[in-house]
Amino acid sequence: MNEKATIGFEYTEDSHEPRIGSDSTIRSGTIIYNDVVIGDHFSTGHYALVRELTEIGDNVLIGTNTVIDGRSVIGSNVSLQTGVYIPSNTTIGSQVFIGPHAVLTNDQYPVRQDTELSGPTIEDHVSIGANSTILPNVTIGEGSFVAAGSVVVDDVPPQTLAVGIPAEHRSLPKNLQGGNDI
Amino acid sequence: MNEKATIGFEYTEDSHEPRIGSDSTIRSGTIIYNDVVIGDHFSTGHYALVRELTEIGDNVLIGTNTVIDGRSVIGSNVSLQTGVYIPSNTTIGSQVFIGPHAVLTNDQYPVRQDTELSGPTIEDHVSIGANSTILPNVTIGEGSFVAAGSVVVDDVPPQTLAVGIPAEHRSLPKNLQGGNDI
Amino acid sequence: MNEKATIGFEYTEDSHEPRIGSDSTIRSGTIIYNDVVIGDHFSTGHYALVRELTEIGDNVLIGTNTVIDGRSVIGSNVSLQTGVYIPSNTTIGSQVFIGPHAVLTNDQYPVRQDTELSGPTIEDHVSIGANSTILPNVTIGEGSFVAAGSVVVDDVPPQTLAVGIPAEHRSLPKNLQGGNDI
Repeated sequence: MNEKATIGFEYTEDSHEPRIGSDSTIRSGTIIYNDVVIGDHFSTGHYALVRELTEIGDNVLIGTNTVIDGRSVIGSNVSLQTGVYIPSNTTIGSQVFIGPHAVLTNDQYPVRQDTELSGPTIEDHVSIGANSTILPNVTIGEGSFVAAGSVVVDDVPPQTLAVGIPAEHRSLPKNLQGGNDI
Repeated sequence: MNEKATIGFEYTEDSHEPRIGSDSTIRSGTIIYNDVVIGDHFSTGHYALVRELTEIGDNVLIGTNTVIDGRSVIGSNVSLQTGVYIPSNTTIGSQVFIGPHAVLTNDQYPVRQDTELSGPTIEDHVSIGANSTILPNVTIGEGSFVAAGSVVVDDVPPQTLAVGIPAEHRSLPKNLQGGNDI
Repeated sequence: MNEKATIGFEYTEDSHEPRIGSDSTIRSGTIIYNDVVIGDHFSTGHYALVRELTEIGDNVLIGTNTVIDGRSVIGSNVSLQTGVYIPSNTTIGSQVFIGPHAVLTNDQYPVRQDTELSGPTIEDHVSIGANSTILPNVTIGEGSFVAAGSVVVDDVPPQTLAVGIPAEHRSLPKNLQGGNDI
């Protein structure tokens, strides 16, 4: 079902059609750029955007209005809910959940210093709550949980709860432990 | 004026055309799924999305990029501003205002526990400020006001100001009392 | 390159085609209303919206899903990243950077009091961090920096760092000083 979606947005003349695995559902309004590689069982909401040079694994859901700005790597069994923003140069592992309107960033000193744009690294089995903000370069360790509305400014160790503005690190409560089988 | 909007997105073969009352203005890019029932004087911005099995009263405005994820009930005289997110299984009363980029959620322990998805309940005459986040299952009582950027984690009693992260409850200042005639 | 964008949305019968300077790149899904005036070297992402009676200078970038609600004035060399919201009656200077998902507002007491809608004033050389919220009527002084995720409730003096909820004002650290050449 690829109704009125744009599969293969030609951003340069020498770019190549995206490769998308079997059994995909790409809903209307979604735009996939050229030079994107996506695994099997890919699905999107409406008006999602995946820009160039992005690699995505199997069994990934990209919600309505979610933007992946390119040059990022995303694992398998990942759910990006509605209105998520993934900047360029971001690394996301497998079994990751990112809640609605969460914002990842890649520019520490916007127009103040020349720095390389570097997005966060989200390790396996991480859950990021709705409307939270993750600063550039931050690594969120395996199995950690970012509470809704938090602003994460430092690396989060594995198996940690990050909560508040700026986010404090706490031990993971029992009801937030355990695997993420998406 | 239904220019280039999608009225009746057929999400399953046995779904039924949406019913929309008189005097509607649905702007281009907006998608209304099948099995939606909407009252009179409905209007939308661009690229709004209303998914299946949603019931909406009279005189409701849904802003540009706002997403209603289905199976929700919304009263009359409600204004959802630009970029609001309403998850499935949410209940919104009448005379309700939800500011730009506010996010309601329905998943307390994303991919950590099996729980039923249950969105918030927003009672009559409530105003929710811009870019605030409302956690699952929370009830916001009649006439209450959520300040911009707050994260509401507990039930808010009627006639209360909720402010901060996590939101504290204060008595409603005089200038925030009074009816909401939208 | 104006592929599948809507240039000149006729919101009233007596409205006039927008005027856009030379060398523009307006990506698919973007909607520019009538009665908009834009300078040279204008570019947009996908699904951006610029409503009526907006004036925009030269060398301005408007990101994917960003909404400018009309009746606003924006200077030159301005970058509005992905998913920014600019309400009506907002004033933005030159050399301004607004990070992804930042929300400006123009309604202090939504449906509680009759007030004139008045958006913020953002002076020259200001940077606003990702997912921050700027309250109505607030002025952010020249060269100031709003940290990601902040909620700015009071005027911010020039050359100041605003951070937190509600935002505190601090002196600008050395690494955030200096010009914004966008």
